[in-house]
Amino acid sequence: MHGEWRWIHPVLVCLAVLALMMATVNFSVVKRALVGRPMKSRELNQAHTKLMWLVALPILAADLYSSVAYGPEAGMTELDPLGAAAKWLVLPITTATVLLLCILIVSYMMGVIAYPSGGGAYAIAKDNFRRPWVSLLAASALLVDYVLTVAVSVSSGIQTMASSYPALTRFETTLSVACIVVILLVNLRGVSESAKVFSLPTLFFMVCMLFLIGVGFVHEARLGPSMPAAPPFGSVPRGLTVLLLLKAFSSACSSLTGIETISNAVPIFREGKNGALKAYAVLGAITSITLLGFAYLLYREGIVTNPHNTMLSELVGRYFGHGPIYQVIIWATLVVLILAANSTFTGFPQLAALVANDGFLPRALKLRGDRLGYSNGMIVLATLATLLVEVFHAQTNALIPLYSIGVFVAFTLAQLGLVKYWLKTRDRGWRVKLVINAIGVVVTTVVCFVVAVTKFTSGAWMVLVVIPLMISIALKVHKHYEAVAKELHIDLQVDRPKKHRVVAVVLVSGIHRVAIETISYAQSTCEHVLALYIGFDDESIERMEQKWQEWGSPCRLVAVKNEYRSLLHPLSRLIRRLEEHEGGKPDHIQLIIGQFIPKRWWENLLHVQTSLLIRAWMIRHKDVVVVTVPYHLQS
Amino acid sequence: MHGEWRWIHPVLVCLAVLALMMATVNFSVVKRALVGRPMKSRELNQAHTKLMWLVALPILAADLYSSVAYGPEAGMTELDPLGAAAKWLVLPITTATVLLLCILIVSYMMGVIAYPSGGGAYAIAKDNFRRPWVSLLAASALLVDYVLTVAVSVSSGIQTMASSYPALTRFETTLSVACIVVILLVNLRGVSESAKVFSLPTLFFMVCMLFLIGVGFVHEARLGPSMPAAPPFGSVPRGLTVLLLLKAFSSACSSLTGIETISNAVPIFREGKNGALKAYAVLGAITSITLLGFAYLLYREGIVTNPHNTMLSELVGRYFGHGPIYQVIIWATLVVLILAANSTFTGFPQLAALVANDGFLPRALKLRGDRLGYSNGMIVLATLATLLVEVFHAQTNALIPLYSIGVFVAFTLAQLGLVKYWLKTRDRGWRVKLVINAIGVVVTTVVCFVVAVTKFTSGAWMVLVVIPLMISIALKVHKHYEAVAKELHIDLQVDRPKKHRVVAVVLVSGIHRVAIETISYAQSTCEHVLALYIGFDDESIERMEQKWQEWGSPCRLVAVKNEYRSLLHPLSRLIRRLEEHEGGKPDHIQLIIGQFIPKRWWENLLHVQTSLLIRAWMIRHKDVVVVTVPYHLQS
Repeated sequence: MHGEWRWIHPVLVCLAVLALMMATVNFSVVKRALVGRPMKSRELNQAHTKLMWLVALPILAADLYSSVAYGPEAGMTELDPLGAAAKWLVLPITTATVLLLCILIVSYMMGVIAYPSGGGAYAIAKDNFRRPWVSLLAASALLVDYVLTVAVSVSSGIQTMASSYPALTRFETTLSVACIVVILLVNLRGVSESAKVFSLPTLFFMVCMLFLIGVGFVHEARLGPSMPAAPPFGSVPRGLTVLLLLKAFSSACSSLTGIETISNAVPIFREGKNGALKAYAVLGAITSITLLGFAYLLYREGIVTNPHNTMLSELVGRYFGHGPIYQVIIWATLVVLILAANSTFTGFPQLAALVANDGFLPRALKLRGDRLGYSNGMIVLATLATLLVEVFHAQTNALIPLYSIGVFVAFTLAQLGLVKYWLKTRDRGWRVKLVINAIGVVVTTVVCFVVAVTKFTSGAWMVLVVIPLMISIALKVHKHYEAVAKELHIDLQVDRPKKHRVVAVVLVSGIHRVAIETISYAQSTCEHVLALYIGFDDESIERMEQKWQEWGSPCRLVAVKNEYRSLLHPLSRLIRRLEEHEGGKPDHIQLIIGQFIPKRWWENLLHVQTSLLIRAWMIRHKDVVVVTVPYHLQS
Repeated sequence: MHGEWRWIHPVLVCLAVLALMMATVNFSVVKRALVGRPMKSRELNQAHTKLMWLVALPILAADLYSSVAYGPEAGMTELDPLGAAAKWLVLPITTATVLLLCILIVSYMMGVIAYPSGGGAYAIAKDNFRRPWVSLLAASALLVDYVLTVAVSVSSGIQTMASSYPALTRFETTLSVACIVVILLVNLRGVSESAKVFSLPTLFFMVCMLFLIGVGFVHEARLGPSMPAAPPFGSVPRGLTVLLLLKAFSSACSSLTGIETISNAVPIFREGKNGALKAYAVLGAITSITLLGFAYLLYREGIVTNPHNTMLSELVGRYFGHGPIYQVIIWATLVVLILAANSTFTGFPQLAALVANDGFLPRALKLRGDRLGYSNGMIVLATLATLLVEVFHAQTNALIPLYSIGVFVAFTLAQLGLVKYWLKTRDRGWRVKLVINAIGVVVTTVVCFVVAVTKFTSGAWMVLVVIPLMISIALKVHKHYEAVAKELHIDLQVDRPKKHRVVAVVLVSGIHRVAIETISYAQSTCEHVLALYIGFDDESIERMEQKWQEWGSPCRLVAVKNEYRSLLHPLSRLIRRLEEHEGGKPDHIQLIIGQFIPKRWWENLLHVQTSLLIRAWMIRHKDVVVVTVPYHLQS
């Protein structure tokens, strides 16, 4: 964490600067190379091929199932101070987690039944609560959680790699950031075409985990545990408090993130909502078996947490040594964790676009990029995740406390929304569903509370600060958009364009080809043309006035001396004068500025582009139409 | 160097970002607070008060005299590998340096006689050599040298402080950078008013050094040296080579930088050139005495170099302990070294402005800032010096090898220019002056060669790469300016503005208040108006066309569908069509874009400012007049 090689980052910065420079030269070439050719809007519908539930399952499972790799470990890390005596606690904690998992899966299956067109916590909350802050609470919690998923999954994947290649330990942060950048680029290119491919690694990882558990049981049946669990099951270790136990449970709950993925994606199932329900049932079963089996083996083998070697790596190493099987499982873990992060790059931008569409987030988030994905949302996600990884030095255990709270807030709101939904619709069998979701509400509320309290000091407070902040920003954004819409609205029958009186001010720096162009332009568009020359001393003004006469005074010249060598002030003064006198305020004052466009980018440094400054300042502070007449230099 | 606290820099970056944000909100307030009220051009002449030579001397001496603090040490550091046996070599090396100093001072006095209006190496070379590269060589060498003076002086000052407060050692880089920033700010405010104040610290430092030497001699006369010099004077230490000796001499020559200051500043002497000559003579005498005395005491006290304690600090500590006298001398050293860096903030921007005025550097360098100084030059100097300090971690000894070569190149060219001058003018007594400068040429050429060869591998190669690079850039810049001037030139009698045919394209995103404004404007300035609407799907286009009809079709509407969700391409296509058809190419196509100006800066994030992008792209790639009509949001 602290031994990070200090040059990697400068090198990355240099590369970024280089990329930026290339971009200035030819941005589109770089963009095409990285992102690929632009795609037509109509290709969006073609890409939406429906999938059989067995194929869709592993794709949607990556987020939830991958957390198996760090969930139990996150829980046990909390019990570190108790020493070996607490080892057996991995069993009850994991069992509690699995129980919670089952409750949540059943609750979410109710969600699928209620919203077969797909609906995450935000959609459910929006549909069932009138106050926007409720759905915004769900959205904020989910968005925060998506960011954390990327940070946690990538960090955890890299940590697993570092367990098997200790030389990588000092580069964890850098590798994690690189990983996020690669995932971002892949997603900017768009991955929907190859989505089916993504089912393989998760499927393979599932097989690996089940195989590992199978081998473990066979191993135990034949040889007994390699090391007897020192203190017997059930003995209360010294120093164990309820708070500590709850804390461990909260951390273990991080393996429950990603449950909502299937309910968001019901439309992609060829079988419709039945496919989604089947997928939920199977996923729940496999995840439960894996968690319980994994926890049992950890207990029997007496494996303890170790910051330099994940428990999974330790367990695999114990059964298979560090040979090819170990390598395969470790790499599969990395790949599946990266897929989990990857799936977030679909979830976050979609949710952000949904919220932006309702006017609660900047509009830019609902624009589709060249490859039809919500590029801006992806970039925001990658930036935030990178920031988190940098700040927490890619330490999974430091990130986990921030993690679970968002999930459970969203869970609770979704359940609560469903409860309201059942009360409202009273569909066939609504009572059972109501009870299921009501249990869901109670359980998730309790867990939410437990997580918030036990993790408050170790980071959850940040989330508890960030979420209300996000909600208040979202409400402000909405207010702004509404005010703007009201302000821009016109009556089609009454408000029509009409002729305006326009006065032109041409800024001239001398009499040369640019001046000819700008004055010609001004005189062709406007009756009242004024040329403004700003000199810094008396001689230059005299010289200009004389030359102007020689030139035949094409229009009135105002030559002002500015002793402060500023262009802005005399210009503002002239504009104020034009606004106040000269037979009533003109409707528009157009300020005409010539701008050099050199052929080579570095030549920009040779021309004092005061015009840019003037343009930026004027347009912001005055009601002036700024006209830029380009002069493309030949030489 | 390696223990630098890793958070200081992020904190600085944050402060910079904060400053930037403040600047966005209200740049002028921040600027006023830091830089002060703007000043009139005519105040420039008022500020030039002439000074008596005795007052001017210490002001102009800071650069040269301050190098006493690091020159001898720089030389002895090279002999470190020889151990204690080489201690006595401090005497011959310093004597050689003093000899060189005397030759240079006499040569420069000739320069003052030849150019009483003040002339640095650049002016002398420009006046006497027809080829621009010669004067550019002098200018580049001097500019490089100025940057190094800042880096070396500041680093050396901070190192002296760190010698007395070892806790500062790990912050050397950060403190040096902070120091440069403060000097920059002070100079941006302008310091000419308070210049007289600057004579005091240098004067005080001179007194301190002479006092130190006096005490040393008294001490020795009464008690003898505190430690006999182990190997007797004149014994050749093992491992001493001519190369090593020359290397040590080259490093010691770094105490000769800053000689040219007086010859640049002749006009500020009330007594004219006689004052300057007197100042040179006195400064030469005092510096020689100080260098010789200091070297003698170093030898007698047997002081060796130590990276954590400068030789000056060691010597002072030996005589006075670490009490108040020690503190006073150390602080005086810091102040005088900072003054040396400060004086460079006048020299560099002036020289850069001179070169820019001749068209060899970007014009921005000859603009005077609010406070009449050449602000851009100052900022460039501070940036480059900061870069050097960062790269070399504020280690004076790593910077010194880069240092002397520039000085001696400039010295040589100035002398050579003077030789040509005497041959040309043949003033009274020109023969003597010619001989003096000829000797100067020979000596400085030899030293230049020695420095280049002995320091080549330890950094001088960088300077030897940078200087030719600078010359070639300067020549390219000149060529560009000449070509532009030729291209812009017009015949006042023939080339006059004339009426142009202008076609307006208004970019509309819908029918609302902004559209009314832009179309009204277009119709008031132009006969041919086209409204362009770019839709991403068929429905939006149909809706727009229908609404347009309801609105009474104020002008022709072109509604295009773009399936790639791009505005740039359809716009370019339309412009190409306008240029090719429609009864001959119009002289100007004006592209009218409405731009939202929100009241609060953060609201900019809520509006997709495609207009900015379009503007930037169009003006660079097409011959299109871009018109930005601001719409200031009320809400």
